[in-house]
Amino acid sequence: MSTDCIFCKIAAGEIPATVVYRDELVTAFRDIHPVAPTHILVIPNKHIPSTNDLSEADQPLMGHLLGVVPKIAAQEGVVQSGYRLIVNTGPDANQVVMHFHLHIIGGQRMKYPMG
Amino acid sequence: MSTDCIFCKIAAGEIPATVVYRDELVTAFRDIHPVAPTHILVIPNKHIPSTNDLSEADQPLMGHLLGVVPKIAAQEGVVQSGYRLIVNTGPDANQVVMHFHLHIIGGQRMKYPMG
Repeated sequence: MSTDCIFCKIAAGEIPATVVYRDELVTAFRDIHPVAPTHILVIPNKHIPSTNDLSEADQPLMGHLLGVVPKIAAQEGVVQSGYRLIVNTGPDANQVVMHFHLHIIGGQRMKYPMG
Repeated sequence: MSTDCIFCKIAAGEIPATVVYRDELVTAFRDIHPVAPTHILVIPNKHIPSTNDLSEADQPLMGHLLGVVPKIAAQEGVVQSGYRLIVNTGPDANQVVMHFHLHIIGGQRMKYPMG
């Protein structure tokens, strides 16, 4: 845990968030600035700053993180309608919080073309 | 392998593609309709239609798939500038090819707000 990281604090339950899924490895909660009816962030409870920092040892964790996505999509009722996963890494992608987070966005048509 | 899946055929080397990374589990190649200077698709060699179809047994594979992203980002020279990962699932996200694929998009500022 990084003591000055807001997402570490959410994972630890030290800051309130609308948590929709939680287990020993990952936490999922609603984005406070949603861009669509469904907008959830899934984070590893462990502090990993960004995609660039993923190590070989993190692969089971990241596989699990992707594995919980269909469960959350089902909870949100977007399995059939569809959804977009986005992970922003670094300045060109406007990554704001330096704790890896995967956006699940759904409930409306996504932008096209994407980018 | 699904015999009528274009991405299965790319993974098997039966259809030409500009492959930038390949191993026994995943294949990465340039999108033929790039939306940015760097636009690469990373796919599991195994046929998995979409995020909704990920099983518990696929988690090591998907962890590996995310694990190769920083290597490809380094090859593309976008580690510092940043990049966006996108996985489209189903109709609201305009998923066209029903074989799981992760987009790596970089080399320019991404759209904001995303969605």
